[in-house]
Amino acid sequence: MSKTAGIIVIGNEILSGKTRDENSLYLVRELRDLGVDVRKVSVIPDELNLISNEVREFSCSYDYVFTTGGVGPTHDDLTMDGVASAFNRRIRRHPDLEATLRQYYDQDIIDANLRMADIPEGARLVGAKGLWFPVIAVENVHIFPGVPEILRRKFERIKEMFREAPFHLREVYLRADEGRITGILHRVLADFPDLLLGSYPDFDNPAYSIKLTLESKDLAYLERAQALLLEELARIQLRPLNAV
Amino acid sequence: MSKTAGIIVIGNEILSGKTRDENSLYLVRELRDLGVDVRKVSVIPDELNLISNEVREFSCSYDYVFTTGGVGPTHDDLTMDGVASAFNRRIRRHPDLEATLRQYYDQDIIDANLRMADIPEGARLVGAKGLWFPVIAVENVHIFPGVPEILRRKFERIKEMFREAPFHLREVYLRADEGRITGILHRVLADFPDLLLGSYPDFDNPAYSIKLTLESKDLAYLERAQALLLEELARIQLRPLNAV
Repeated sequence: MSKTAGIIVIGNEILSGKTRDENSLYLVRELRDLGVDVRKVSVIPDELNLISNEVREFSCSYDYVFTTGGVGPTHDDLTMDGVASAFNRRIRRHPDLEATLRQYYDQDIIDANLRMADIPEGARLVGAKGLWFPVIAVENVHIFPGVPEILRRKFERIKEMFREAPFHLREVYLRADEGRITGILHRVLADFPDLLLGSYPDFDNPAYSIKLTLESKDLAYLERAQALLLEELARIQLRPLNAV
Repeated sequence: MSKTAGIIVIGNEILSGKTRDENSLYLVRELRDLGVDVRKVSVIPDELNLISNEVREFSCSYDYVFTTGGVGPTHDDLTMDGVASAFNRRIRRHPDLEATLRQYYDQDIIDANLRMADIPEGARLVGAKGLWFPVIAVENVHIFPGVPEILRRKFERIKEMFREAPFHLREVYLRADEGRITGILHRVLADFPDLLLGSYPDFDNPAYSIKLTLESKDLAYLERAQALLLEELARIQLRPLNAV
């Protein structure tokens, strides 16, 4: 079984369409490459109770949880409080983070800046070496900022800790009505119930009209499933458009 | 109070990073323009129980629910079953939809194609005039396909039924450290608790470093809140970079 992950995107600016969420697509792709199975993405507002409930639910449901957004000094930055509340922890000023902030702001520092050192009690600082400001983690929840460049830099720094066996992917392109192949897909799944099998019509592409995706972490299993699929397609005179 | 909405994006291809979800951004922006407050977006796999649970929860939580994806003839198209199950309804073949499909496919029709006429019992056909295939709705849940062009054409056709009073937006751009203005933002919210106030740092933009967004459906309220904000900013010698 793959490790699973859930991503919580926090921010009114996404839900009101002011900002396009680039972070979940980035994380989804990175995690897939790492062999992690993302099971859910949710986008929620900057509201304490909603953040707390979502974090609690995700933390119980998935091996890893990633939050993006809602960290910073202003009134709408509630992720730390939300995560603390999800785990019934208090917020505490972390001495290492405080030192980092004091060094950065020097004598210009004001109280509001130090709020970024206020994190859930017992939180871990992940990737502290090599990052100006580490990733904050509580239980299985990893807290990332909403600014895409910073999120990427941070994820890049710590991602190897999530790596496991890769997914193998095969794609089969066809020109046919999707209805014609439903029986075949069912037969393949009957023999290969663990195959991840997707069927995606494309109505505007002159090159093909269906893309099938076959995935598994078990390469031999994948290849046997693919062989059966091609055999069944040949039986109704359907040849893949790509060489497989 | 605004009407609220939730969007459920259904599809393994999104969660595995194969396809970028364009639909939620489109719907979020359209709904915002219509004056509807989107409260949550979730992306979930093509799995019957997960779809059913999410639809049930969203249907209770928001005035309108929109699903995208998972409609079609293949094994991974489970949205209709999921919605039916959420409301304890059976799936029934709808005679009008069956007629539409028979006309389209003519003598080439096969059973799998007719699956697209199988919808939850008692479902409404919305926007049937002017659409080749109408939007299927059950209770407050509106079911859209995942193909962006088709989703847009369908939403465009029915969107006026969701229109209400618009949100008014003001933006204030500043060059300052976000920490410096947190007290001011709190004071504005203390006087205008219903103001939707966002503060967004931009670390890479040479033109400004903070964008503040102020929103309300009540224009007079918004203007009073904005006046207070500008007054408070002037007090610490912070002038907006844009003319407001």
